[in-house]
Amino acid sequence: MELLKVDSLEVAKEKLYNEYKKGLGIEIEEVLVSDSFNRVIANNVISKVNVPDFNRSTVDGYAVLAKDTNGSSDTIPTFLKVVAESKMGEECKTKIVSGECVYVPTGGMLPIGANAMVMLEHTENLTNEKIAIYEATPEWKNVVHIGDDIKEEETVIKKGKKISAGDMGLLSSIGVESINVYKKWRITIISTGDELVSNEKDYKFGKIRDVNSNLLLGLCIENNFEIVNKFLIKDDENDLREIINDCKKNSDVVVISGGSSKGKKDLSAKVIYELSSTGVLTHGIAIKPGKPTITAYDKKTNTVLIGLPGHPIAAFLLFKLLIVDLYEKITCEKNKSLQKYLELCISENLPASPGRTTFQLVSIENDKAIPIYGRSGLIHTLSMAMGYIIMEENQEGINKGERVKVYYL
Amino acid sequence: MELLKVDSLEVAKEKLYNEYKKGLGIEIEEVLVSDSFNRVIANNVISKVNVPDFNRSTVDGYAVLAKDTNGSSDTIPTFLKVVAESKMGEECKTKIVSGECVYVPTGGMLPIGANAMVMLEHTENLTNEKIAIYEATPEWKNVVHIGDDIKEEETVIKKGKKISAGDMGLLSSIGVESINVYKKWRITIISTGDELVSNEKDYKFGKIRDVNSNLLLGLCIENNFEIVNKFLIKDDENDLREIINDCKKNSDVVVISGGSSKGKKDLSAKVIYELSSTGVLTHGIAIKPGKPTITAYDKKTNTVLIGLPGHPIAAFLLFKLLIVDLYEKITCEKNKSLQKYLELCISENLPASPGRTTFQLVSIENDKAIPIYGRSGLIHTLSMAMGYIIMEENQEGINKGERVKVYYL
Repeated sequence: MELLKVDSLEVAKEKLYNEYKKGLGIEIEEVLVSDSFNRVIANNVISKVNVPDFNRSTVDGYAVLAKDTNGSSDTIPTFLKVVAESKMGEECKTKIVSGECVYVPTGGMLPIGANAMVMLEHTENLTNEKIAIYEATPEWKNVVHIGDDIKEEETVIKKGKKISAGDMGLLSSIGVESINVYKKWRITIISTGDELVSNEKDYKFGKIRDVNSNLLLGLCIENNFEIVNKFLIKDDENDLREIINDCKKNSDVVVISGGSSKGKKDLSAKVIYELSSTGVLTHGIAIKPGKPTITAYDKKTNTVLIGLPGHPIAAFLLFKLLIVDLYEKITCEKNKSLQKYLELCISENLPASPGRTTFQLVSIENDKAIPIYGRSGLIHTLSMAMGYIIMEENQEGINKGERVKVYYL
Repeated sequence: MELLKVDSLEVAKEKLYNEYKKGLGIEIEEVLVSDSFNRVIANNVISKVNVPDFNRSTVDGYAVLAKDTNGSSDTIPTFLKVVAESKMGEECKTKIVSGECVYVPTGGMLPIGANAMVMLEHTENLTNEKIAIYEATPEWKNVVHIGDDIKEEETVIKKGKKISAGDMGLLSSIGVESINVYKKWRITIISTGDELVSNEKDYKFGKIRDVNSNLLLGLCIENNFEIVNKFLIKDDENDLREIINDCKKNSDVVVISGGSSKGKKDLSAKVIYELSSTGVLTHGIAIKPGKPTITAYDKKTNTVLIGLPGHPIAAFLLFKLLIVDLYEKITCEKNKSLQKYLELCISENLPASPGRTTFQLVSIENDKAIPIYGRSGLIHTLSMAMGYIIMEENQEGINKGERVKVYYL
């Protein structure tokens, strides 16, 4: 029997990335800021304005010349003349000189000449036109300067950032109403297997319920991809060829799960070979689980073709390691997240697995990483797992109590 | 001037939770598993089936009686008679006895009587009916037992879990096609302020661009809430009353941002007081930033009313600390995430802030938490921040190099 000639994970990723780069890349579209949550921004955003664009009060009170308040206290107040009121949302055109002040509400504009705000609590209204000030107030106290938050020409968001709620607020604050983002990848999911059924009414003893369609659907939503087609088909070469050929036209990625191991019914590799401009780039990756994985790229339609193992955990991992990884690499995606892993002690010995990179699912209890065992087909483990640890090809086993990096699942 | 009588954050949360519990709670709806990503499941899921529900081969090869292979090796093969072939997705009704075997593909059903699988690689096809076996194979080698993954009557997902891609696969594997989940909260967002403008064509010098609408919109999407109404209104008591009264009918939460401090234009508290069955529960929380916050609940319409500070960072934090927190508490939401905080050393001294709980935004560089300073109105800091640390009311300052918990933003 012919054995798979396997690539390391790094080589498989590199080959796919290099081919994809030769194509048209990921398209860019303009979206409203209100529609931009979790989208990856495609260029730097430079502010055209200062924020604030006027000296703004952070309190309700009186705008003054700081030096006028020198020496003021509860027992020795300073008396100032109120010459105007600054109104929220309006330009304050008044100019004050020594001995004068202007009422300014929180968020309002300081009059020309003023360089500090005295809080209302430290003043007393004597007449309509005269107030007493009971506190010495240093320069620029209770004032946000022009440009204190954001300066004109400042780069406020960098290309590749995944837009957060905070970024949406930031963009609104500088008057940006729409931004360029990378288009969501349109994904086709094809599950193959004579044994698979997609709903209970078709279920008979001996059949297998299709797990990967909903699993991969969930992963697409999680990663902000759009599902454009979803198929469950028999192991029929002609059907598979026809569907992939058709879906290439409106998909950025076609994912075929199942049928990628060298068994009796290995059709995916053959069909993927025929329908991609590169032929098969990788057929077999030296990782556990996930060996029977196929990658290819069709330049004509700018479509990535991925054959994932039928085993759910392997399909899950490879979707992340190949497809999500490629999108992030191409878009330079940077998340604001704290960290992608956590360092914890492992609860038991883990044997080495020479010659291939091993992904071990773990749960976490009492600050310890606890390996979850199960053959790669066991979907239950995926629901329980909180992360995974990676054992490199040449790494020796890990001893109980050793610190390991637990990556987010 | 009347000062706010403030609650601690814990008291404010407790008051709101206790009132909300007296009402109708959060409704439950049935959704397809394919539509359930990130939804919070409302009851335990108990499997009605075993997974797998037959003894399943994990390899392509021959199902045998393990004892028949005793002593087999490359030089001394065992010869067995092939009596049938198990087909993928079909029941295998064959029963084998000593000396017999059945071909079974990966994922196929073992025949009755078989208790091990010999990999194809360790066999040789001699004639159509006869094979040689070159490896001794222990009992249950290469076989997944009935119920190995999931047992009938086993609780596979617990109430309150936020459904992940893995859970969607798990549910499919046991034939569950729809589940009960808590309804998404329908949120109304109202920004108030004479000075606010929602788009550039209305902008004039002195105006403030509305930041909170898009900021809170992003937070709603992030937390899987649905925005049913979005308003930007002037500081007009009648308008505010009319809109809140109207929106209570189709909203689970009405969020009013701005207008909650005791300034000239504090209308929110008055209107919220009138329109809630509880009156104002909390007016002012002893946290920094975020003091001028209002909570109330209207039992008749089952609506939570929240007045958030106008300052974006305060609004952002309080949305999480009050609204997201309440939804999680009511639904018993449990995420599968690794951990909600990270322990890091702080890069500089932080002064104490007696009498109120302080939330300090931080970024992270070289495994150190770096405080990001800025008055609470400075939206830029929110975009840069990666998390926050909490200093309790009675806590002394934190010294440079001390370990702190950095919570995810």
